[in-house]
Amino acid sequence: MSGSSTGLLTDQYEFTMLEAALRSGAAERRSVFEVFARRLPEGRRYGVVAGTGRLLHALAEFRFGDDELAVLQRAGIDRRTLDWLAAYRFTGDVDGYAEGEAFFPGSPILVVEGTFAEAVLLETLALSILNFDCAVASAASRMTCASSGRPCIEMGSRRANEQAAVAAARAAYVAGFAATSNLEAARRYAIPSTGTSAHAFTLLHDSEQEAFAAQVAALGPGTTLLVDTYDVEQGVRNAVAVAGRALGAVRLDSGDLVAQAHDTRRLLDSLGNDETRIIVTSDLDEYAIAGLAAAPVDGYGVGTSLVTGSGAPTAGLVYKLVARESTSGGELVPVEKRSVGKASHGGRKWAVRRYEGGTAAEEVVGRVADGEPVEGRQMLVPLVRGGEVVGAEPVEAARERHGRSRGELPPAARQLSKGEPVVPTTYL
Amino acid sequence: MSGSSTGLLTDQYEFTMLEAALRSGAAERRSVFEVFARRLPEGRRYGVVAGTGRLLHALAEFRFGDDELAVLQRAGIDRRTLDWLAAYRFTGDVDGYAEGEAFFPGSPILVVEGTFAEAVLLETLALSILNFDCAVASAASRMTCASSGRPCIEMGSRRANEQAAVAAARAAYVAGFAATSNLEAARRYAIPSTGTSAHAFTLLHDSEQEAFAAQVAALGPGTTLLVDTYDVEQGVRNAVAVAGRALGAVRLDSGDLVAQAHDTRRLLDSLGNDETRIIVTSDLDEYAIAGLAAAPVDGYGVGTSLVTGSGAPTAGLVYKLVARESTSGGELVPVEKRSVGKASHGGRKWAVRRYEGGTAAEEVVGRVADGEPVEGRQMLVPLVRGGEVVGAEPVEAARERHGRSRGELPPAARQLSKGEPVVPTTYL
Repeated sequence: MSGSSTGLLTDQYEFTMLEAALRSGAAERRSVFEVFARRLPEGRRYGVVAGTGRLLHALAEFRFGDDELAVLQRAGIDRRTLDWLAAYRFTGDVDGYAEGEAFFPGSPILVVEGTFAEAVLLETLALSILNFDCAVASAASRMTCASSGRPCIEMGSRRANEQAAVAAARAAYVAGFAATSNLEAARRYAIPSTGTSAHAFTLLHDSEQEAFAAQVAALGPGTTLLVDTYDVEQGVRNAVAVAGRALGAVRLDSGDLVAQAHDTRRLLDSLGNDETRIIVTSDLDEYAIAGLAAAPVDGYGVGTSLVTGSGAPTAGLVYKLVARESTSGGELVPVEKRSVGKASHGGRKWAVRRYEGGTAAEEVVGRVADGEPVEGRQMLVPLVRGGEVVGAEPVEAARERHGRSRGELPPAARQLSKGEPVVPTTYL
Repeated sequence: MSGSSTGLLTDQYEFTMLEAALRSGAAERRSVFEVFARRLPEGRRYGVVAGTGRLLHALAEFRFGDDELAVLQRAGIDRRTLDWLAAYRFTGDVDGYAEGEAFFPGSPILVVEGTFAEAVLLETLALSILNFDCAVASAASRMTCASSGRPCIEMGSRRANEQAAVAAARAAYVAGFAATSNLEAARRYAIPSTGTSAHAFTLLHDSEQEAFAAQVAALGPGTTLLVDTYDVEQGVRNAVAVAGRALGAVRLDSGDLVAQAHDTRRLLDSLGNDETRIIVTSDLDEYAIAGLAAAPVDGYGVGTSLVTGSGAPTAGLVYKLVARESTSGGELVPVEKRSVGKASHGGRKWAVRRYEGGTAAEEVVGRVADGEPVEGRQMLVPLVRGGEVVGAEPVEAARERHGRSRGELPPAARQLSKGEPVVPTTYL
């Protein structure tokens, strides 16, 4: 089972807690855990939910076969707990913000309800997936805002862990990226993939012109030629000489991209290649993309900054017990810790996004026990019911939803400058 | 094959380059690619090589079965290239800095020699693994420096992609961490794992004392009790009341850790628990660890900051063609691009670390074609020969090596303040 089980992508303390709770008799208490961010990364105006689809898939593989149980036994977990785990299947409910939605501090983006035993085990898996994917999607959304409709291409695989890279490609796609360079993401999520050549290909040949001729012979004149290996102007001339008017694009990967984009556009036009596009890469982030808004650029390739969350490589989401069955059974009792700086709001909650004139104006979070939700859009949707995934959807659906969700935010959401979240959160 | 093949953890452009090179006839030219960092993250004094063992494992799985070929065909790769890939095995040589070594700007930490076709395909896989693992190990090494022999425990899984978390645990262990919370890392790499309980366990029970009693009943009095859910002083008193003098440790996870550590030590001693240790967690980084040096703390749990490279989530390593066979065959010709700000040093190289009085004094990098290496320690060791892995070793070996390699650096390596690399790199 080790090939596909996600059961050990987990912190050991979840199993020691399980062991102790099975012993104390508290393991079967119905419990509610909530995933939320205490704050957004400094200055960010909104966060983006991503990873939900991956989490639902991982949840279905969260089980314990002989291999997993042997590891747990070596870690000191007792026989009773191992037997319980051998039969484990999550049988509870999960609600959450639909993938692609914007979120704010305190938004309960995932709510897991089940016995303590079955729900406590999901903490690390849920947080690992959501923290990384939300971090990438939140950065990606700023980039696709800044690019104002020009396509952004994800090419950060080399600057992320090899499996994180696949998740990053997916998260970027959710947040509006047009394509990825990552082939495993293309396979796993049917995301459009793209790629042409690197400097090594030019250097392999005896001249730039020879390299361009080889690329065009294989990929056709509609390909993108990388023109900055030696000298950009000569590179553009060589590209046009080889590919002619049908040349698809040139790529600039170094130097002053604004100046080069203008120079290259003029040169291409003067050579009759006014249909040839200009793609820029080279350590772009949302600020560099915005800085190129007035330059004649047709697409952006984004790597490092995207897969590292543009300064916020994790979303800071936590998984907290907010309510559990009382000793007498039945009723859910709100619980909250009082740790300094880390206090939580107890109780199972609803979340409503209120609108004014079609624009999101307030995120209202209230306790289910205190009464009906206020008027507005209910943010929590069913993802799992009785252990069965009910919220699976193609990644395209999350991508479209993100466009709608971002479109409803106040205009300040599109500002890259630091500021407060554009929608305030109110706890009722 | 899709379960274990690493063949698609790759950027598409490597396959389009392959296709074009197969067509131009340049694919079979012997080529040398080099992995190096142009610079260290701002202010860092040294980097740490990690991930080499993972890369050697991934290399052995780098092949293309029907599943992978179908994805490549959909991406537009031609039949000739697909046939070539179906038979692909890397048959070249790889040398590198042994895992755990310190490195500096320009250090050729990996050198791949083979045909262009077989070596160009490894770019993304090699960089993904090395960039992430080196970033984590480089941060981890600063933390284990700052902790001055007190154990550091890796517990960052929840703040990293779920698979990256496993790699992070391994990289931290290479750089001197004592254990991890991650069970998959315990399985995959036989790293010691640890874990006890979270706030949720306390909140699950009707009182803190009841929760502590449940934990001690299951895990014994030698366990670590988390004492900051409600009030630290009362928590410590409850812990001692339940576990007695045999209480293993208490954990502080919030607030002013320096003051709390002192208060808690005094309280524990006054209760007769002078053998009970104090473990601190809560967004620690190397600076916070250093700030606790004078506090009575016995161990550090480190999460977010570790798995995100403490401000440098990727190591900035690049994979560059530095030499390839000339048109007439035989001889290797140095190649280097002249892109603004990204110029490279061509030619296959040796690397020697020179010492003065037992302390590393200079990293000398020279071209093999220009003559014998200078005197000192040869840094490149054989990892792969003719496609066969010859450099595999247990992760313990890398961990021990890191201790030795760091021990040879000038004292300034232990400073956390920003500065220049402690060993200058000289290109001969």
